[in-house]
Amino acid sequence: MGRMKLQRTPTMRRMPTYLHKLYRMRFEGETYVSCTDLAKYMNIDLIVARKDIALTGLAGHRRYGYRINDLIDAILRFVGWDKACPATLVGAGALGSALLGYHDFNDYNLRIESVFDSDPAKIGREIHGHEVYDMATIRTRLKANTPKIGIICVPGVAAQLTADILISLGVRYLWNFANVCLNVPEQVIVQREVIAGGFAVLAAKIKAVESGATPDEE
Amino acid sequence: MGRMKLQRTPTMRRMPTYLHKLYRMRFEGETYVSCTDLAKYMNIDLIVARKDIALTGLAGHRRYGYRINDLIDAILRFVGWDKACPATLVGAGALGSALLGYHDFNDYNLRIESVFDSDPAKIGREIHGHEVYDMATIRTRLKANTPKIGIICVPGVAAQLTADILISLGVRYLWNFANVCLNVPEQVIVQREVIAGGFAVLAAKIKAVESGATPDEE
Repeated sequence: MGRMKLQRTPTMRRMPTYLHKLYRMRFEGETYVSCTDLAKYMNIDLIVARKDIALTGLAGHRRYGYRINDLIDAILRFVGWDKACPATLVGAGALGSALLGYHDFNDYNLRIESVFDSDPAKIGREIHGHEVYDMATIRTRLKANTPKIGIICVPGVAAQLTADILISLGVRYLWNFANVCLNVPEQVIVQREVIAGGFAVLAAKIKAVESGATPDEE
Repeated sequence: MGRMKLQRTPTMRRMPTYLHKLYRMRFEGETYVSCTDLAKYMNIDLIVARKDIALTGLAGHRRYGYRINDLIDAILRFVGWDKACPATLVGAGALGSALLGYHDFNDYNLRIESVFDSDPAKIGREIHGHEVYDMATIRTRLKANTPKIGIICVPGVAAQLTADILISLGVRYLWNFANVCLNVPEQVIVQREVIAGGFAVLAAKIKAVESGATPDEE
């Protein structure tokens, strides 16, 4: 296998926000955007926005900036969002429901095609247009049609078992919202979301401000 | 004001996961922990865990590693979680409910003391022990007792107005889960959570794997 340096995580994390702004500008009838517009919207340094956009490989026009349509396409290709990404979501609690209601996933080509839960009170219910299936049926339902991504929104104690089942069905990519680290085979890739991580960043900024310093961050 | 370089965001983001592991080890009767244990749990390089832990300023024992109790205290102090942080949460939808049910916030001294929503179907309901108050009463309820943090979980269209109200009440720190960037005065600090950010990171890894490269990341 070749070895390719992945782009820095903070750069990738900013991409949905650029897209969000670009879709809105297009909706409002704009045709061109400048890095200055994007940097101002996101409250980041111009140089950071410039570097991020340069990574997408799109050339800007000296006077007008970037064509919004072209920049949207360039970002989608850069992130890998130009192809549809089928997914299954396990755990239809509050967080799972929030994700199912997150309309922007359409913009990113994330297709949640099935939802599973083991709670009889949730099975059969419809959440944002998705019927909740019985977790006991996951093998039969997904066997012939393995989704690329498994989104894990179950409680921490059930997360490893959920991951094991998904992996046994051939799911190679896990987006883990449960509050535990998962043991997975080497070929499986896990992206873990730690909600409290943002609070750690915020708490550190508060501490810096209250100790009389100016937060100085990218 | 002095100028202090904040710690790198990825380091801060890992702190809740270290804490989570340490609390669990303590619960299981362990007394000492090594950086190797922490790195293995988090599936990160040992050097990354070592650097993170060194930043907390705690000295380890050559043979035994770190005392778990001491390391917990050191991390709490390092992040600024050693003091209680009162907060209000606006928007008791699926995401807000998920946050209200997130028990680990207690470990981080985040105290959500009030919850507001403008939806009559939600006002007066109790979510994970929190009564949902009418958003129309926020000024009177918070005037005498301004929380440090405002957690914004309202839909994007209502986020700026919510921020404006919180700021007018003296809230200086906003944790923004809405899918928009907020305009705020310079002295107000916003930590924005972009749920799709993690999906961008995951998508980039998928793209790298499928193009035959080995994801190579911290």
